[in-house]
Amino acid sequence: MRPGILFVVVGPSGVGKDTLIDGARAALSADPRFVFARRLITRPADAGGEDHEAISEEALLALGRDGGLLATWGAHGLRYGLPISLRDDLLAGRHVVANGSRGVLKDLAATVPRMIVLSITASPDVVARRLAGRGRESAEEIALRLARAAPDLSDALEVLTVTNDGAPDEGIEQLLSVIDAATRRLVLKPLPIDGWRDSIVYLPADGILGVEEFDGPGKVDLAGGGRSIRARVNVVDAGTLLAPHEIGLSREAFATLGLPAGSEVSLTRTPPQRSRDALRAKVQGRELDADDYETVLRDIVEGRYPDSEIAAFLVAATRSLSDAEVGALASVRAGFSTPLRWDEPIVVDKHSMGGIPGSRITLIVAPIVAAHGLAMPKTSSRAITSAAGTADAMEVLAKVDLTVDDVRRTVEQARACIAWNGRLNHSAVDDVMNAITRPLGIDSNRWSVASIISKKLTAGSTHVAVDLPYGRRAKLRSEAEARELAALFETVGRSVGLHVEAVATCGAGPIGRGIGPALEVRDVLWVLEGHEQAPADLREKALAFAGRILSWDPAIATQERGRARAAELLASGAARQALDGIVAAQGRREIVPKPAALTHTVRASCPGRIGEIDGWCIAGIARRAGAPFDKGAGIDLLRGVGDDVTAGEGLFTIHASAGPDLEAAVAMAAQDDGFVLAR
Amino acid sequence: MRPGILFVVVGPSGVGKDTLIDGARAALSADPRFVFARRLITRPADAGGEDHEAISEEALLALGRDGGLLATWGAHGLRYGLPISLRDDLLAGRHVVANGSRGVLKDLAATVPRMIVLSITASPDVVARRLAGRGRESAEEIALRLARAAPDLSDALEVLTVTNDGAPDEGIEQLLSVIDAATRRLVLKPLPIDGWRDSIVYLPADGILGVEEFDGPGKVDLAGGGRSIRARVNVVDAGTLLAPHEIGLSREAFATLGLPAGSEVSLTRTPPQRSRDALRAKVQGRELDADDYETVLRDIVEGRYPDSEIAAFLVAATRSLSDAEVGALASVRAGFSTPLRWDEPIVVDKHSMGGIPGSRITLIVAPIVAAHGLAMPKTSSRAITSAAGTADAMEVLAKVDLTVDDVRRTVEQARACIAWNGRLNHSAVDDVMNAITRPLGIDSNRWSVASIISKKLTAGSTHVAVDLPYGRRAKLRSEAEARELAALFETVGRSVGLHVEAVATCGAGPIGRGIGPALEVRDVLWVLEGHEQAPADLREKALAFAGRILSWDPAIATQERGRARAAELLASGAARQALDGIVAAQGRREIVPKPAALTHTVRASCPGRIGEIDGWCIAGIARRAGAPFDKGAGIDLLRGVGDDVTAGEGLFTIHASAGPDLEAAVAMAAQDDGFVLAR
Repeated sequence: MRPGILFVVVGPSGVGKDTLIDGARAALSADPRFVFARRLITRPADAGGEDHEAISEEALLALGRDGGLLATWGAHGLRYGLPISLRDDLLAGRHVVANGSRGVLKDLAATVPRMIVLSITASPDVVARRLAGRGRESAEEIALRLARAAPDLSDALEVLTVTNDGAPDEGIEQLLSVIDAATRRLVLKPLPIDGWRDSIVYLPADGILGVEEFDGPGKVDLAGGGRSIRARVNVVDAGTLLAPHEIGLSREAFATLGLPAGSEVSLTRTPPQRSRDALRAKVQGRELDADDYETVLRDIVEGRYPDSEIAAFLVAATRSLSDAEVGALASVRAGFSTPLRWDEPIVVDKHSMGGIPGSRITLIVAPIVAAHGLAMPKTSSRAITSAAGTADAMEVLAKVDLTVDDVRRTVEQARACIAWNGRLNHSAVDDVMNAITRPLGIDSNRWSVASIISKKLTAGSTHVAVDLPYGRRAKLRSEAEARELAALFETVGRSVGLHVEAVATCGAGPIGRGIGPALEVRDVLWVLEGHEQAPADLREKALAFAGRILSWDPAIATQERGRARAAELLASGAARQALDGIVAAQGRREIVPKPAALTHTVRASCPGRIGEIDGWCIAGIARRAGAPFDKGAGIDLLRGVGDDVTAGEGLFTIHASAGPDLEAAVAMAAQDDGFVLAR
Repeated sequence: MRPGILFVVVGPSGVGKDTLIDGARAALSADPRFVFARRLITRPADAGGEDHEAISEEALLALGRDGGLLATWGAHGLRYGLPISLRDDLLAGRHVVANGSRGVLKDLAATVPRMIVLSITASPDVVARRLAGRGRESAEEIALRLARAAPDLSDALEVLTVTNDGAPDEGIEQLLSVIDAATRRLVLKPLPIDGWRDSIVYLPADGILGVEEFDGPGKVDLAGGGRSIRARVNVVDAGTLLAPHEIGLSREAFATLGLPAGSEVSLTRTPPQRSRDALRAKVQGRELDADDYETVLRDIVEGRYPDSEIAAFLVAATRSLSDAEVGALASVRAGFSTPLRWDEPIVVDKHSMGGIPGSRITLIVAPIVAAHGLAMPKTSSRAITSAAGTADAMEVLAKVDLTVDDVRRTVEQARACIAWNGRLNHSAVDDVMNAITRPLGIDSNRWSVASIISKKLTAGSTHVAVDLPYGRRAKLRSEAEARELAALFETVGRSVGLHVEAVATCGAGPIGRGIGPALEVRDVLWVLEGHEQAPADLREKALAFAGRILSWDPAIATQERGRARAAELLASGAARQALDGIVAAQGRREIVPKPAALTHTVRASCPGRIGEIDGWCIAGIARRAGAPFDKGAGIDLLRGVGDDVTAGEGLFTIHASAGPDLEAAVAMAAQDDGFVLAR
């Protein structure tokens, strides 16, 4: 049996202590869990005031000496005592409410197992009014009394404050609610159960809270010590794993909450979703506005929906999303993150949707833009299914796992950065959504537009160029599809105050020669250094995007002049130098990985003209060779779309660091090398 | 420490025992969990055969007397013994495999804690060939040996059989797999945890199976004693709630499995969904064929998908479902149930989609059809949100909770039945789907068509009339919508070999006067008995549907003649008598509830013409008065759409059995009585 709590009510005269205690006693009179202490007072029984036991001072002191009192104290010329029998109540699990005095709190706390001080306060005006109303003291006496500061309560005591500035009923209500919350606290006990990513709390069937309040398919919030988690409830039989005042936590729940075993915590039912009607409306095919999306996404992120309902919402949203909805989603999602603020008139960005192998123009565009002087805080992804993401390639040269402060400092020093977006643009919305959409293969370009635009907003960009490659092997299958998405990007950008220029580009085959981090960086450096082997297509695409971005500088204004300026910065070596500045600011890699030494050249089995190169297939071979984790692994294309080849002529060289990787990649290429020859 | 299992291998000469044991010994030589018994044999050590310890007969018998043997037996002129040290191996948790003899099994079982007999068998031909190959016996001796039947093994022993008819490697493989499965069995232990409808099994972290094999988000199948459940896995710390050989079950899992604590069970990972690609394709908006739906629905029903993926599938399916897909779904769903077969050329049915209050034509149509002589095994629903379903109304007169045999007998005796569909058409698919679609408010008419047609197929119907009421307050809002759905019903019916005639009917207001079970039955009897108060609209609609159904009898052939025949059966009292026959066959209610005695009449507050009656509103008032659970409660309409009323004229009378119900219904009607007056 867990002992009850001794609630000691303290507070200055005039604060309304007696009124609140009387009110609470009346409200809890039928509740057997509570006892209100009847005090011993050296005042005649018929002298009015609280119901007390009259006793002489001598008898009271004698009782104290004989161990008959829990505590005794003097005040206003009287002596007070709390009978020792209250301890039996406490040990029997009953909570005791007693009118006390600050002076005896420390002694009392040492005498009883659990004690909470209920400190009643009120503003000085209110207290002064109440004291004046009693008419026992003069105005001066009252002012003097109020000027005496209340002594600080010891830090070792648990003190809960009740403010009694309003009507008596309000104060009583508040006192009752503080008492109730304190008695409903549970003691944390980790259970040796691992629910596999499921946070589970276990309630004893005979628990002090009553399981019917928390049972069912919904979730609960568990809070204590400034921390909280949301969890599912399981119930354990009475008398087995948990005492009635305990709450069990699965390993995941215990680790996430992070409080020590034995901590006191409080449990509440997770409030229902405010957004339920909106979510249902979307599932049933209707259009939502920004307010709807705000509440739906918040309830999703805060774990108020079961997975089935999130999945239903996502499927519905990927099926139909109007332009206005994409805009609403973009701004709502941006609101979920703290945006970066730049003290710049123009902050540019560039995004490419749907990976084309080798298309590493960001590593050329960002240095050109930086060399010109515009700010470009670029964040990029790592590869998920491709042979290298921009972040993987940049990591060949520099550290990319930057903090927000690193990004700020790099852009300050070098005008641009090329950072990994994983840490910077982390989105709780994406986490929840991806967990559900990936197994189902749900992918919606319109939903992605909202996500991309929201991230650009969060990054503090003002102008964004979007590259939309289309092709039979690209994510966007046709020019029409790419153009439609481009229009959506620009419309949505406008609706949230972002200047977006989205361009459909040819994605018929890889761009550049290298595929894999180090090989792609080699191409990039060839372009920046004007090397004779620099891939013309990579240089051309980079110049086109750089020119477009530079045209946003009012001093340049047109894309033609932008392109000319970009070419000039490339030719002069200024862009190469800018990349060096960015690398230095982000943190230069000491050893720069080179293309891996083990190679095998895949050759044409018959003569013909190369009609198509399947980027997914080539990326698959490069990954099999070790990219992107092995920076040096990948593919070096020897021939491109439109080239004529003779039988036995090399098509591409596979690079790998380990023999088995090379062998596996060669075997994969023997199955399908991705080259479609038109004889 | 749980003791190991003593595996005693037995079988007749020539069955290949030695070969199998040698093979198993070689395969398990590196596994410390297994010990292979080295026997004591009264045969010189260098005499060949198995590796044994040579001992004299006297010494062996002496050893036996001194407690040095687990067992001893004689065979083929030799004496064999198993050393007592094997018991130490067993008690240390190691499994022992021993070549034994049928004669000592009972004694052995009494000596060791766990024992399994591995009975090696082979077909007589194979054994004869093997024995002949050894050349030790003549053909006659072999024939004689084979003719001796093997003695039956005691029922008290656990015997696992290995058939050794093929190559030695196959036999060894089989023996190893039987041994492995036996050592992987777990002992069932109910844990005092209630996972709230979640079946959870708990594995100890140090369990004999290794948790990594079962951990993760997937499910497991737990089987034993011919029963099995599918459950989620939680892991408990070593040395806490479970011993290594135990498996814990949550209360729900334990109750569902239904085996006693201590039972041995085996655990396997639930196989992945075969239908994953099909489900993903549907989620991504593609069309599925019947084979796809077959596998998807089966995997859903068998619990292989998480709720999120079922929800995604259902949302996608409610968004787009081609006519062909509705047909595929209908036949696939029908395949999930065992269809009723009728020895009848024509089996008719009738279905109404979207409840119109009071429209109880089934209770008139079925008796007419029965009186004519066609078979009509009708199953109907109870009310979900309305004031009465057909089953609720029929229950005023007869038992409706019929078994399949009851239905058969009733149709045999009375040509028709009107039974509750809850028990008869129970669908596991619907159970899973409803649990997910109801909270989301997903409702798809096209999906419903597949469900309805599949149920008619399962009921064994050949001809079905479908009533599709449309109106501003009906489920189908417009005539066009109703007609489109009618066409779909007929197309899908054709595709599965069912003659369906679907008719759009006017659903502008209630049909008949009474709303609520007893009041609706009163209307029905008025029609069947030619009472002057019989509602004309109810009679007319019933005759139209009955006439259409009778026209399927080749002897009648046209709807006009069908209607005339129906009217004749009504006028002659034959239909009334047929209802009586149906009631008698289903089981007559002894006390037929009458409209409830407490009444209140709601009156027009101003004069006008009744433009519309809101069926949902009226049904809500009837339910508030107690319908459908209180059979006598409901509403009696005094006026209909198109009637002129004066201020204070009665619009409808509320019937209730209890004062508070009447008051609540009256209060509800005072808010909105559902009558729209055009002044």
